Amino acid sequence: MLLKSYLPILEWGPKYNRKTLINDIVVALIVAIMLVPQSLAYAQLAGLPPEVGLYASMAPLILYAVFGTSRALSVGPVAVTSLMTLAAIAPIAAQGTPEYLAAAMVLALLTGLILIILGFLKLGFLSNFMSFPVMAGLGTAVGIQIASSQLTPMLGIPSEGGTFLSQFTSLVKNASQINIYITAIGVTSFIFLLAVRKYLMGLLIRAGMGKGLAGILTKMGPVIAIIITILVVAGFGLDKQGVKIVGTVPSGLPGIAIPPFDLSLWSQLATPAILIAIVGYIASISVAQTLASKKRQHVDPNQELVALGAANIGASISGGFPVAGGFSRSIVNFEAGAETPAAGAFAAVGIALVTLFLTPLLYFLPSATLGATIMVAVLSMVNFKAVKITYSYSPTDGIAMALTIVLTLTLGVIAGLIAGIGISLMMYLYRTSRPHMAIVGQVPGTQHFRNINRHKVITTPKIVSLRIDESLYFPNARFLEARVSELVASNPEVKHFILDCSAVNSIDASGLESLKAINIRLKEGGITFHISEIKGPIMDGLKKTQFFQELKNRIHFTQYEAIYSIDPDLAKQAMEQIKMQ
Amino acid sequence: MLLKSYLPILEWGPKYNRKTLINDIVVALIVAIMLVPQSLAYAQLAGLPPEVGLYASMAPLILYAVFGTSRALSVGPVAVTSLMTLAAIAPIAAQGTPEYLAAAMVLALLTGLILIILGFLKLGFLSNFMSFPVMAGLGTAVGIQIASSQLTPMLGIPSEGGTFLSQFTSLVKNASQINIYITAIGVTSFIFLLAVRKYLMGLLIRAGMGKGLAGILTKMGPVIAIIITILVVAGFGLDKQGVKIVGTVPSGLPGIAIPPFDLSLWSQLATPAILIAIVGYIASISVAQTLASKKRQHVDPNQELVALGAANIGASISGGFPVAGGFSRSIVNFEAGAETPAAGAFAAVGIALVTLFLTPLLYFLPSATLGATIMVAVLSMVNFKAVKITYSYSPTDGIAMALTIVLTLTLGVIAGLIAGIGISLMMYLYRTSRPHMAIVGQVPGTQHFRNINRHKVITTPKIVSLRIDESLYFPNARFLEARVSELVASNPEVKHFILDCSAVNSIDASGLESLKAINIRLKEGGITFHISEIKGPIMDGLKKTQFFQELKNRIHFTQYEAIYSIDPDLAKQAMEQIKMQ
Repeated sequence: MLLKSYLPILEWGPKYNRKTLINDIVVALIVAIMLVPQSLAYAQLAGLPPEVGLYASMAPLILYAVFGTSRALSVGPVAVTSLMTLAAIAPIAAQGTPEYLAAAMVLALLTGLILIILGFLKLGFLSNFMSFPVMAGLGTAVGIQIASSQLTPMLGIPSEGGTFLSQFTSLVKNASQINIYITAIGVTSFIFLLAVRKYLMGLLIRAGMGKGLAGILTKMGPVIAIIITILVVAGFGLDKQGVKIVGTVPSGLPGIAIPPFDLSLWSQLATPAILIAIVGYIASISVAQTLASKKRQHVDPNQELVALGAANIGASISGGFPVAGGFSRSIVNFEAGAETPAAGAFAAVGIALVTLFLTPLLYFLPSATLGATIMVAVLSMVNFKAVKITYSYSPTDGIAMALTIVLTLTLGVIAGLIAGIGISLMMYLYRTSRPHMAIVGQVPGTQHFRNINRHKVITTPKIVSLRIDESLYFPNARFLEARVSELVASNPEVKHFILDCSAVNSIDASGLESLKAINIRLKEGGITFHISEIKGPIMDGLKKTQFFQELKNRIHFTQYEAIYSIDPDLAKQAMEQIKMQ
Repeated sequence: MLLKSYLPILEWGPKYNRKTLINDIVVALIVAIMLVPQSLAYAQLAGLPPEVGLYASMAPLILYAVFGTSRALSVGPVAVTSLMTLAAIAPIAAQGTPEYLAAAMVLALLTGLILIILGFLKLGFLSNFMSFPVMAGLGTAVGIQIASSQLTPMLGIPSEGGTFLSQFTSLVKNASQINIYITAIGVTSFIFLLAVRKYLMGLLIRAGMGKGLAGILTKMGPVIAIIITILVVAGFGLDKQGVKIVGTVPSGLPGIAIPPFDLSLWSQLATPAILIAIVGYIASISVAQTLASKKRQHVDPNQELVALGAANIGASISGGFPVAGGFSRSIVNFEAGAETPAAGAFAAVGIALVTLFLTPLLYFLPSATLGATIMVAVLSMVNFKAVKITYSYSPTDGIAMALTIVLTLTLGVIAGLIAGIGISLMMYLYRTSRPHMAIVGQVPGTQHFRNINRHKVITTPKIVSLRIDESLYFPNARFLEARVSELVASNPEVKHFILDCSAVNSIDASGLESLKAINIRLKEGGITFHISEIKGPIMDGLKKTQFFQELKNRIHFTQYEAIYSIDPDLAKQAMEQIKMQ
């Protein structure tokens, strides 16, 4: 059982038959064709030679097939992690050097190790701390930054790397160096790809094609663009006009090599690796869960960490760079009908065949086409409307999202991400540290108690009932103490104080200490402290304490019983009263 | 009004009359006598010359009288912050050098600035993040470490500073260098002070004295010990037998000087200053609130930050070191009957008189007596039983407390405190990230829904109702997604899924996204998603969203209505059924 949970292949492997095999091979063929341009493009984005993109699309697919629990997830280089790879390595090594390649391998290795450790320790929940506003803000910022970075290959304008800001200013400064041939290829490819993405699917469906097949063909746009632009560049000899081409891509499979162990390099790459691991994992798990739900399958979040970790280690030792589950590639895999993770492994074989035999055909492939491919892919990530929508629902979340976008664009993707996580944690803690509290009174004719500011309720000056709408935790425990002391000081007639815990899901040790302090302080002031509506699980813990022994008869099952114990007449009269409007 | 809130003296000042004046002067005299030995002892603990302790007990008292909202809080050097001062400065400068003194002044200035900024920004709630387990663990560890450090002045054994561990090992190594005269004075003083603390109060009360006066006299033990040991050392010339004495204490008031602005020094002291600010503030505010409640007075937590900040800046520019509200001194102030903060200001005048005229009398004061004073004061801070009690109530809190103790003793007080805060934050986030969830069913004969594992309830395979006992936040949002996907995968017959939100106090943007994802995924799987029992404040926000428009008719006021909308017969039959046992 345990072995099966760590090796899901043992689950589906034995049931594998000829029919599934043929199905998976067909799927793999489709996926492999789509993956080739994607792999080349994302390698370019990460500042790596094209073959590294191909390498990163083989071993990871095979390892994910062994360890993954999703039937449809396809792992390989994706936009966000490729940009994060560039951001992590650019300050350490120069593009094109062996050091740059080695750093990419180390980064993938660290990412993989972190994911596997998180998986074995069942710490997948840690990824939850990258909140929706941060992830959405990151997506928008990364989309903008990647789009701007691709203006260099698409228009031939040289620019410096770094943050969006430094990139953008150098693009503006160097605008005069634009190359007309590169621009022609880049812009035409871009318009073509955009048109394919926007209209082809509708056209094909109107022409009578099934939705699944139409979707898959639409995803093939980049392949067509690549073929056409290779022919154009080769035919007109445009490489002699300054059009940057991919050039010689070494053929043959990658060797297996352990990345160098260099402590200073490892420690420099540790933080980016953690962030790439978490961002990659969140992207993967959300795609995997969405696809699984369509067939009522289940993915195991912790095992997915192990699988994605294995995939990254595979990428590392086969000369690649960090990988994650891709959205568009997984959709293609799913729509094409992948029945088992083996489809992914077969796609890896397809890419291996390309690497072995077809790399000479890529010689004339212009960087402009790859740039256009990336540009179209990332534009859909940019979503400023989300800030507005989120702000209207939850202002703090909207602010967190806006700050993540601004900080990622100005400070870079790693710093922006850390700041975003910090901001949303602080806002979360701030919110829970100052919970909503309401003074409640009895609704006439009922045993219900409601906020005195929202409802017509019955109260008496000698009793103050406070409801706290949050669990009692250390971030808010002393806030409650202060509120109680304030209430007591401003209500000189009060003789009884009741804390209504109906909205309290837990009370930690700090909360308990605050309750003790409140009890002592109220007693000093001649006020009796009562607690009502404590939930079962809290009561279980409370019963073990000295505090419970002291309070015992003043812990009431319901708020009504609390009032009744102090002043039965008042409680009964309120109950008998006709409900006022 | 605003001015009054920042200058509470404007509140009580105009009402000041002759009766209050005389009362406050009498209180001040008592407090001043008690403060002299305490000030000298805590200066010794912080590695500073004795006069610095006196300086730190003048300006802060006067400034607190102007800005403070507590009538009884007495500020000055206290044990924890003195040890933290030592820990912060020892790595930077050598004891006895002008650099050490300057660093203490900078530390007090930074502590004061941080407190004032927190106060103006109303960020007092930040101190809540130092949870009860961390504060209690810190108290025990600091008590042990201070007690061990005082073995050097009390027995004459030389030792190195640093963490408890390094201190303790060097004490053991140097044990043979014990000085018999120092030990005699130290141990006798210790036993005397312990006896006074334990028995004097009872004896005095039995002799017919009032409880308040007996308590005050008991606190005078150190003054008696000091007078006797000064006479003994002077009379027998014990200073020539190696007994370390205080020696010449410069008389005269401190000058006013701005501490040096040295960026590297400031940045080295920033972290300790933050921690001293928070620890000092928590100690002060809890004493202030406890004393205020006895007279049904109110202290303003944010104004207390400003007042404590002003006190620290006062300490800094008058040549002192970080101060906080002390527990025992405030109790004396309160018991003696301080009616306004002016009592504190008068006590400062008393200490000024001592500093002006009585310092020659302190020449023969042995360090051993001060060591014994500190030792007795801190022993009550050590409380290992708290770990056990806390663990039995809340295991995670007990672990946090134990780890804070161990880490403070091994890594030092600053590192231990940071680790403690980190641990309790992580444990808190861990807990809330994996909230309790229960599948609920209808209790026969009622409209109530309860956990199917705890109660006999009515369910149907086509409906799954899940109650989540925590607010929906980003740390747990995706956890809910995973749980729902698991439930759906393991219940093939389910057609309706109801999320019971009766225990949900808020839903942030990430929670909303998860609800959207759950809705989409359930729809893909042919299951209808319902929500029930959403609280009013959440509904207000939800109504602004697209999600609400989509779900609208599937958001039910109560869980019963949710079931009724799906299967009225089932709901009604369950209601009519007699409650089973």
